[in-house]
Amino acid sequence: MDAPAKFELTASDPGSKARAGVLYTPHGVVETPVFMPVGTAGTVKGMTQGELEELGVQILLGNTYHLYLRPGHEVIRDLGGLHRFMAWPRPILTDSGGYQVMSLKGLGRVTEDGFAFRSHLDGSAHFLSPERAVEIQLALGADIVMALDECVEYPASHEALRRASRLTGRWARRCRERFLSARALGSEIPGGWAAGSAAGGSGRPFPAQFGIVQGGTDLALRRESAEEILEVGFEGYALGGLSVGEPKSETYDVVEATTGLLPADRPRYLMGVGTPEDLAECVARGVDMFDCVMPTRNARNGCAFTSEGKLTVKNARYARDEKPLDPACACAVCRRYSRAYLRHLFLAGEMLAGILTTHHNIYFYLDTMARIRQAILSGDFSRFCSRGRSGTC
Amino acid sequence: MDAPAKFELTASDPGSKARAGVLYTPHGVVETPVFMPVGTAGTVKGMTQGELEELGVQILLGNTYHLYLRPGHEVIRDLGGLHRFMAWPRPILTDSGGYQVMSLKGLGRVTEDGFAFRSHLDGSAHFLSPERAVEIQLALGADIVMALDECVEYPASHEALRRASRLTGRWARRCRERFLSARALGSEIPGGWAAGSAAGGSGRPFPAQFGIVQGGTDLALRRESAEEILEVGFEGYALGGLSVGEPKSETYDVVEATTGLLPADRPRYLMGVGTPEDLAECVARGVDMFDCVMPTRNARNGCAFTSEGKLTVKNARYARDEKPLDPACACAVCRRYSRAYLRHLFLAGEMLAGILTTHHNIYFYLDTMARIRQAILSGDFSRFCSRGRSGTC
Repeated sequence: MDAPAKFELTASDPGSKARAGVLYTPHGVVETPVFMPVGTAGTVKGMTQGELEELGVQILLGNTYHLYLRPGHEVIRDLGGLHRFMAWPRPILTDSGGYQVMSLKGLGRVTEDGFAFRSHLDGSAHFLSPERAVEIQLALGADIVMALDECVEYPASHEALRRASRLTGRWARRCRERFLSARALGSEIPGGWAAGSAAGGSGRPFPAQFGIVQGGTDLALRRESAEEILEVGFEGYALGGLSVGEPKSETYDVVEATTGLLPADRPRYLMGVGTPEDLAECVARGVDMFDCVMPTRNARNGCAFTSEGKLTVKNARYARDEKPLDPACACAVCRRYSRAYLRHLFLAGEMLAGILTTHHNIYFYLDTMARIRQAILSGDFSRFCSRGRSGTC
Repeated sequence: MDAPAKFELTASDPGSKARAGVLYTPHGVVETPVFMPVGTAGTVKGMTQGELEELGVQILLGNTYHLYLRPGHEVIRDLGGLHRFMAWPRPILTDSGGYQVMSLKGLGRVTEDGFAFRSHLDGSAHFLSPERAVEIQLALGADIVMALDECVEYPASHEALRRASRLTGRWARRCRERFLSARALGSEIPGGWAAGSAAGGSGRPFPAQFGIVQGGTDLALRRESAEEILEVGFEGYALGGLSVGEPKSETYDVVEATTGLLPADRPRYLMGVGTPEDLAECVARGVDMFDCVMPTRNARNGCAFTSEGKLTVKNARYARDEKPLDPACACAVCRRYSRAYLRHLFLAGEMLAGILTTHHNIYFYLDTMARIRQAILSGDFSRFCSRGRSGTC
């Protein structure tokens, strides 16, 4: 079966597994490798959508769990889908909701049939089955729908990892079936869709669905999980269960091994990773897509990413420092504001502190990724890595 | 003596006391009547300076009390003044700090020599004399420096009003003396200043200083206060002690009576006022300048000003409302976002809620003022008022 979502490889680095490509989605193209800022509740905290567009954000991540609970996926569907609701015209990937449910300790419980959980807002009882996770994401109008998976924290017993990984496999089948039946009916996404060229369609192309490989840091389990997920077959593949507490060298080893099991012609998404260094390291290991709260959450806590490493803005040493956050940065914040001013804003608890630092951090992440992509395209990726802007690869 | 700061009357409304003018300051011209958004601690909460520029903000108000305590006026002076510190190139008016000191109940005490107070941040003891208030504002590099006054809450006894009003008069003299000696020396403002045309100057023109008329709602006291302040002589005159709890009709009566006592060739500034309706009402009574936290503070609390009155964004009736905050508004927020989305942001406690509503409210205030000014210039002010966009005049 042909996938309505299309991924084209543009260039591959001869010295590593790094690759550049283009991902076609219902709301436009995404050039990979790409970093996706996290817009949990339909907003990247502190940023306007216009600012995100100007920053060059190509695709946002939305959190199904949060949007399902508030304002509710039916409300969003009835208002034309998440893009229209939040006035964001570019692509959106939604997670399945499972990760959030499980990270609310004590509020969630896993069964063969899905997650039983209570809302962190009002304590109400809910159930998230694989089918339900697909339905909610389709109602939101996501461009990329994630399969429901079970993510296990590090460290975990082999038994726990195997159980979760196999459950993820069974859920992947159910998610895919639900997704394909929706596609066959073509009636579940806001605005409808154009079924191939035959539709002659007023609607948009159907979303893509990504399956998730689990297995923790156990390479044999990773192989088993990958084989299972590949057998189901998706438009793209994600690596879940990483960046959950394991040592960085293990993250890299698992990424390296797992991408080697995945087909070259499908995009690969490493969930929840990571630092600017991680981006370069994992692109070198064959990853195309990333998301992480780090640039946004750290910004609000007063941590800026710079070409010289992390900078703690509140530090007293910056009280009279007229330099920008990063003298090598060309972002709107570094062109206008000093460290002394930003420090003052943080100490005064002003909203602008988080706003400006978030802007800078997103710029820094996107700029890092743009340089990585350009280096791949120009056959210069190994040299880019050894220059060490974002660590060595 | 010629005032370095210049005010030119451009047009006067034949049917009211409304007037349009141009105020020249060290950091550029301000077209009056004008609304000044409040940037308490060197930031208009939730707005970037670039956004304020794009909105057409001509002049900001900064709070001496807050900036004196944090980061400290010496720090700001050493970093080149408040304009450079906060990266705001347009004019800034600073209040004297007295109002904030007195509104921190229990932390401030008034004496003949000034305000003794304790910091709300760390409890440290401070003293704000009339001279000190001038020195701090000069160190900040304000374009318009306010005299120190004592503002009394409504209701107050005649005795309390008279005492405060006369103290304000004595302080006005001391503030003016301190200001004039600084101007004679020409050495106390960041970046220096050009003393008239003879200076041939690399520096900027010297700031203006405004005196403040007190007297509460007692018209006889207002007259006595105005005479005292006028005798001292300032580049502009402010009406203090209003919008402190008195009935609106009394505010308007006091404004009407007091502007009648002030010279036509100097700008008049009504402190801490008010609603969009108040702007039109008080322009009609001869006021040129306004400041108020209402558009910004109310925005963060979920209240939007619209052409159809106030709108409480969180209201359940907007849960599925796809209309913008104000269908008649052309601001960037109304062109992009729905009430349903904004309501969601408020309920979710997202920063973007305050950011977007603040943007809209400032736009609405500036747009109201721009329409008022245009109506005065085109001789159409009475008709503007009777159309009632901002209430009747």
